[in-house]
Amino acid sequence: MPSDGFSHATELNVRFAETDAQGIAHNAAYLVWYEVARVDYLAHHAGGYNRIRDLGLEALTTETHVRYLGAVRFDDRLRINIRCGDLRGARFRFDYLIERVTDTGAEAVADGWTLHATVERETLRPTRVPEWLREAIEAAES
Amino acid sequence: MPSDGFSHATELNVRFAETDAQGIAHNAAYLVWYEVARVDYLAHHAGGYNRIRDLGLEALTTETHVRYLGAVRFDDRLRINIRCGDLRGARFRFDYLIERVTDTGAEAVADGWTLHATVERETLRPTRVPEWLREAIEAAES
Amino acid sequence: MPSDGFSHATELNVRFAETDAQGIAHNAAYLVWYEVARVDYLAHHAGGYNRIRDLGLEALTTETHVRYLGAVRFDDRLRINIRCGDLRGARFRFDYLIERVTDTGAEAVADGWTLHATVERETLRPTRVPEWLREAIEAAES
Amino acid sequence: MPSDGFSHATELNVRFAETDAQGIAHNAAYLVWYEVARVDYLAHHAGGYNRIRDLGLEALTTETHVRYLGAVRFDDRLRINIRCGDLRGARFRFDYLIERVTDTGAEAVADGWTLHATVERETLRPTRVPEWLREAIEAAES
Repeated sequence: MPSDGFSHATELNVRFAETDAQGIAHNAAYLVWYEVARVDYLAHHAGGYNRIRDLGLEALTTETHVRYLGAVRFDDRLRINIRCGDLRGARFRFDYLIERVTDTGAEAVADGWTLHATVERETLRPTRVPEWLREAIEAAES
Repeated sequence: MPSDGFSHATELNVRFAETDAQGIAHNAAYLVWYEVARVDYLAHHAGGYNRIRDLGLEALTTETHVRYLGAVRFDDRLRINIRCGDLRGARFRFDYLIERVTDTGAEAVADGWTLHATVERETLRPTRVPEWLREAIEAAES
Repeated sequence: MPSDGFSHATELNVRFAETDAQGIAHNAAYLVWYEVARVDYLAHHAGGYNRIRDLGLEALTTETHVRYLGAVRFDDRLRINIRCGDLRGARFRFDYLIERVTDTGAEAVADGWTLHATVERETLRPTRVPEWLREAIEAAES
Repeated sequence: MPSDGFSHATELNVRFAETDAQGIAHNAAYLVWYEVARVDYLAHHAGGYNRIRDLGLEALTTETHVRYLGAVRFDDRLRINIRCGDLRGARFRFDYLIERVTDTGAEAVADGWTLHATVERETLRPTRVPEWLREAIEAAES
């Protein structure tokens, strides 16, 4: 189901609230879709994002990048392809490819990546990615 | 500066991200503008919303109502008139009138109200509105 | 699948982006969920919202109401129950009941209603609900 | 008023709706703040974004980048520093530095850039940046 080179994919429809007066999806909505894909990735491969939160940890977003390849409109069916890699200490990276899915195929409409760091919730201090999460991600990506 | 019958007013410009593919501001944006006005009201009259949060309290929103009287567009200048009343125990109410402001005057574009309850953050249990906040609101509204 | 008295239901998970610093879903997110349910309702019963838009019409939101019955958190599974009624000329109304769905049942977390008017896109002038849409809604609700 | 190397600055307060359950501003909000700064830049230097739209043009966002340098919280006062450059044909670029402003100074909390292309609204086809806009930007940046 995910496209070549990706380990997971999430599908969603563009919400009307995510469009703007240009008649297309607003550029900030893509960061929300990235997040929906991350949450879904962690639910499938690592027991869910709340398992991280239950440890008193948060995964902060430290960098985001989106390349918009084509306009996306209300009710378009999107597939958010995602893979995780580059775990080092407290940091990890996700890569994304967003495709519009139609009856006749799929077309790339955006791609990009995000960087993250695990931190203690109370202090926001960086802390190593928990071992079980590292192992779960390595299993998902191998 | 506030319109007749209101005790406070906040001005803002409609953001492009707040519009949708109908070319007008999305209906959910009005609840965010209500909130911006509440925050500004509390900053001017009661030491700021963070003073409530610093006590370990939150003001939950328990009911919202918006009547949309006319389309609002990107970059329109809006005045959010607000007043607070009906404090009883843990509950209070805000009323709103949103006007579009132009060089030649102001025109009503929406009105409505919200209900709130003060709760303890950890338990979300209702707790009486703090006395200083009740007094501050009564002073603002008298 | 929909709860008693409702003709349609849509399920979704609360997005992290829809939460706020109170740790619960922001009050404006509920209006977006209402809209997701309306779009899904029209897709199932009336050929989709885009069928209305293709006629050069828009369905404006003229009034919204939400009653928040209990806190909703990140990743909660919600069922948005919806029914449509009260078509008169250009106007119609949707009613909603939002439930949190768990393994052991469903619990009401919000309810409310919205009013709408069909208008011509260019002029925003009210125009009668198209006959096919009226018939589709009456069929769905009977 | 803008920081060294920037030609314009816009200030705003973090809205409560822009925070998430981590207790800090959501990563997607920064793209909205970028946009608020672009709109303000164009209003001050080039007659406003609506002047572009009145020509039947839109400025699409084709790439966005944010580096999050420190957590930002509800009601923090932010200064969005912005400069425009690299106009070539239909394309241009904005750079940003977001600072938290306090009584005692300013601290960088994010930076990044966006790429844009001017297109005809109806076809979304690229079209050269209008000459008056190019001149206005060059004047602002010189």
